[in-house]
Amino acid sequence: MSNIKQVIVFRSDLKLGRGKLAAHAAHASLTGFIKTTKINPDLVSEWLNSGQKKIVLKIKDEKELISLYEKIKKKMPSELIRDAGMTQVEPGTLTCLVIGPWYEEEIDEYISDLKLL
Amino acid sequence: MSNIKQVIVFRSDLKLGRGKLAAHAAHASLTGFIKTTKINPDLVSEWLNSGQKKIVLKIKDEKELISLYEKIKKKMPSELIRDAGMTQVEPGTLTCLVIGPWYEEEIDEYISDLKLL
Repeated sequence: MSNIKQVIVFRSDLKLGRGKLAAHAAHASLTGFIKTTKINPDLVSEWLNSGQKKIVLKIKDEKELISLYEKIKKKMPSELIRDAGMTQVEPGTLTCLVIGPWYEEEIDEYISDLKLL
Repeated sequence: MSNIKQVIVFRSDLKLGRGKLAAHAAHASLTGFIKTTKINPDLVSEWLNSGQKKIVLKIKDEKELISLYEKIKKKMPSELIRDAGMTQVEPGTLTCLVIGPWYEEEIDEYISDLKLL
């Protein structure tokens, strides 16, 4: 059995309130879930049945967030999450990146230098 | 068209770190999504296509969280979320409740006294 996880990477330069942080984490997780389900439903089932491991990390700023996304976007299911609201940050602000659920081994190659949120 | 939303209610007496808060919000959102999809997939599609509104609220403590869950659990898709980890809180601690996605009107009857997280 492969190890599978979902990773959510938040910008640490944004000062998101706890409610917005939680809502964006939810949005990111669901986006990754739906994306991976379309590509590999068996992997998603395995992830759900093995405790659906999730890791939340932080990255310096928007530039580094986009740079990470550009590196991985053709290699594994991932998506940048934008804020649609009108509070705390400008509408359209990138807040986080979701990766997977996907194979832990493949993800770790790109995130090993990031710290837990 | 009906208004549909997903609501996540966190205990405010737990001092969850931002990473754990985000991970639990993600877990809750996904749990609600999967639960409602089994009962009413059309409602879920409509929610996804209309911006997947999510609201994050807070409630006083475990007792009130469980009391809210007991009131709604037979009326709309909902689930209590527990912590499986070994950090910050005891394993098995209830952290939050997810409701829906479901009809806003039906949810609001039960949560109108709760404040945003």
